[in-house]
Amino acid sequence: MENVVDVIHQHALQVLRERGVHLEDIAQLVYDLQSDYQDELSMQECRFHVDKVLEKREIHNAIITGIEIDRLAEEGHIRSPLLEMIRSDEGLYGVDEVLAFSITNVYGSIGLTNFGYLDKLKPGILKEINAHLGGQVNTFLDDIVAAIAAAASSRLAHNKAGTRA
Amino acid sequence: MENVVDVIHQHALQVLRERGVHLEDIAQLVYDLQSDYQDELSMQECRFHVDKVLEKREIHNAIITGIEIDRLAEEGHIRSPLLEMIRSDEGLYGVDEVLAFSITNVYGSIGLTNFGYLDKLKPGILKEINAHLGGQVNTFLDDIVAAIAAAASSRLAHNKAGTRA
Amino acid sequence: MENVVDVIHQHALQVLRERGVHLEDIAQLVYDLQSDYQDELSMQECRFHVDKVLEKREIHNAIITGIEIDRLAEEGHIRSPLLEMIRSDEGLYGVDEVLAFSITNVYGSIGLTNFGYLDKLKPGILKEINAHLGGQVNTFLDDIVAAIAAAASSRLAHNKAGTRA
Amino acid sequence: MENVVDVIHQHALQVLRERGVHLEDIAQLVYDLQSDYQDELSMQECRFHVDKVLEKREIHNAIITGIEIDRLAEEGHIRSPLLEMIRSDEGLYGVDEVLAFSITNVYGSIGLTNFGYLDKLKPGILKEINAHLGGQVNTFLDDIVAAIAAAASSRLAHNKAGTRA
Repeated sequence: MENVVDVIHQHALQVLRERGVHLEDIAQLVYDLQSDYQDELSMQECRFHVDKVLEKREIHNAIITGIEIDRLAEEGHIRSPLLEMIRSDEGLYGVDEVLAFSITNVYGSIGLTNFGYLDKLKPGILKEINAHLGGQVNTFLDDIVAAIAAAASSRLAHNKAGTRA
Repeated sequence: MENVVDVIHQHALQVLRERGVHLEDIAQLVYDLQSDYQDELSMQECRFHVDKVLEKREIHNAIITGIEIDRLAEEGHIRSPLLEMIRSDEGLYGVDEVLAFSITNVYGSIGLTNFGYLDKLKPGILKEINAHLGGQVNTFLDDIVAAIAAAASSRLAHNKAGTRA
Repeated sequence: MENVVDVIHQHALQVLRERGVHLEDIAQLVYDLQSDYQDELSMQECRFHVDKVLEKREIHNAIITGIEIDRLAEEGHIRSPLLEMIRSDEGLYGVDEVLAFSITNVYGSIGLTNFGYLDKLKPGILKEINAHLGGQVNTFLDDIVAAIAAAASSRLAHNKAGTRA
Repeated sequence: MENVVDVIHQHALQVLRERGVHLEDIAQLVYDLQSDYQDELSMQECRFHVDKVLEKREIHNAIITGIEIDRLAEEGHIRSPLLEMIRSDEGLYGVDEVLAFSITNVYGSIGLTNFGYLDKLKPGILKEINAHLGGQVNTFLDDIVAAIAAAASSRLAHNKAGTRA
């Protein structure tokens, strides 16, 4: 029997899948961020920390809210002028960064740096997400994915040091 | 001829009105917060700082996004389980506080305290908003209004001291 | 044999003790915040969540940095005009709130409200801390203690719901 | 006759100078961040926005507090184990990022991305600061300078669009 918490957790994982995000791709971002600093880092370990980050309720809330806004913008349910701001991923619209910050912050302030770096350079899967192919609106999604990767990197760094973020 | 910036500013004021929020009521929250600390504080001065806070683009973004989410929840356009979380103003859903924090922070960290105080005690107009009368969903609105009042209080405090928040 | 992590953890607990803060007093703040919302809440349970909050590295960093600044201000090692700003707990100096926010945020955005409430009303031990008796500078300490109590309240609320902050 | 506000403003500018930071170098960071997005951007304009950012009280507070901590660590007035954490710019110590975040946030959430990018890649003056030459402790300084540049970039972007951050 599933409880409410499991429902929200499963829903967060499902909406990421629906939007074409594979957790291996997020783990790859973590690996690329951390492999210079950690000896013998494995993809399996990166994936482990991504999974742990995705157990947190604060992070579920940000994921399902942000992706729902993207979807509602796609389907035209959001009113002007917000609709156009979100559809065009307008540079001065920062609510997507605000939500992303609530994800990184769960593992402490050291995640801010990695989030900004990923959000600026858009490596790996972030480039694909940011292409907004086929009319898809990914304004919140790219920040959410970058933030999950940054949070998992922080978690991994704290863990290697034997500490708790 | 209006430009895009004015359109967003006007839209933010309009959605507050649509949801039944009068700027005088926000000014009253500011007055009640600050009158013990400021000699000869007038309602007119409080209203002035509310108006100034409402000129900021970061704050427009938070207002129109948060209120749009409330409206979409009312109209049932948001999917489960997020729909039920927002409709019931669920205690562990903190995205409304995250957005509110992006409002208070424009005028510095001293606004955090006033925001939390207002959000906990729900004085004045916040009590009415929080009653969610007639099927209205105000999950984001009450935090937004508390945050505007907290930001205006910070702006007023900085101004009285001759400094800039 | 102690490792670095334990050293930092123990140091954070020690500096709180040095400044006259008993963890039972923080647990009491949690109890007063949460007893209206949680059936059969015990002080023991509140203390448990305070202890768990105090295991987090991000929170150790904020505690030992903030209390060190208070101590350095007391001993006069900080230069003017910062020295006077800290000694007088100046209303427009918000770095203490910034540090407190890094504590509450580890358990999600719902802690902001409780932090603000405690910081405004200064119940229980916060009143004593805020009195700055005997030349003690507690500018950072009172925000830190309020933030620990707010974070522990968030942790408790998430736990009762079977979720993870 | 100078008032308190001017004293704090002048002090913030002075401590930056004392630590070897020229505002032209910060303006250069802004230019490098923004010249791809803004036609006919001049160094003069970048410097203008750096100066405006440096008028804000919240930002003065962060600057003078962070640099004072660096100085106190240099002079050995800070106690172990915090002393060693700051002197070694320890990766899991994130209070410097917390302070930096309070700087960027004054101009909205869009500054987070640029801050992270600068903090990760350390271009221009940040590389020199980060070298910690001659026993200088710059743990807070490099984040503060990156944050000022990110905030000035946000201000410039909002200004070009005719909006207010």
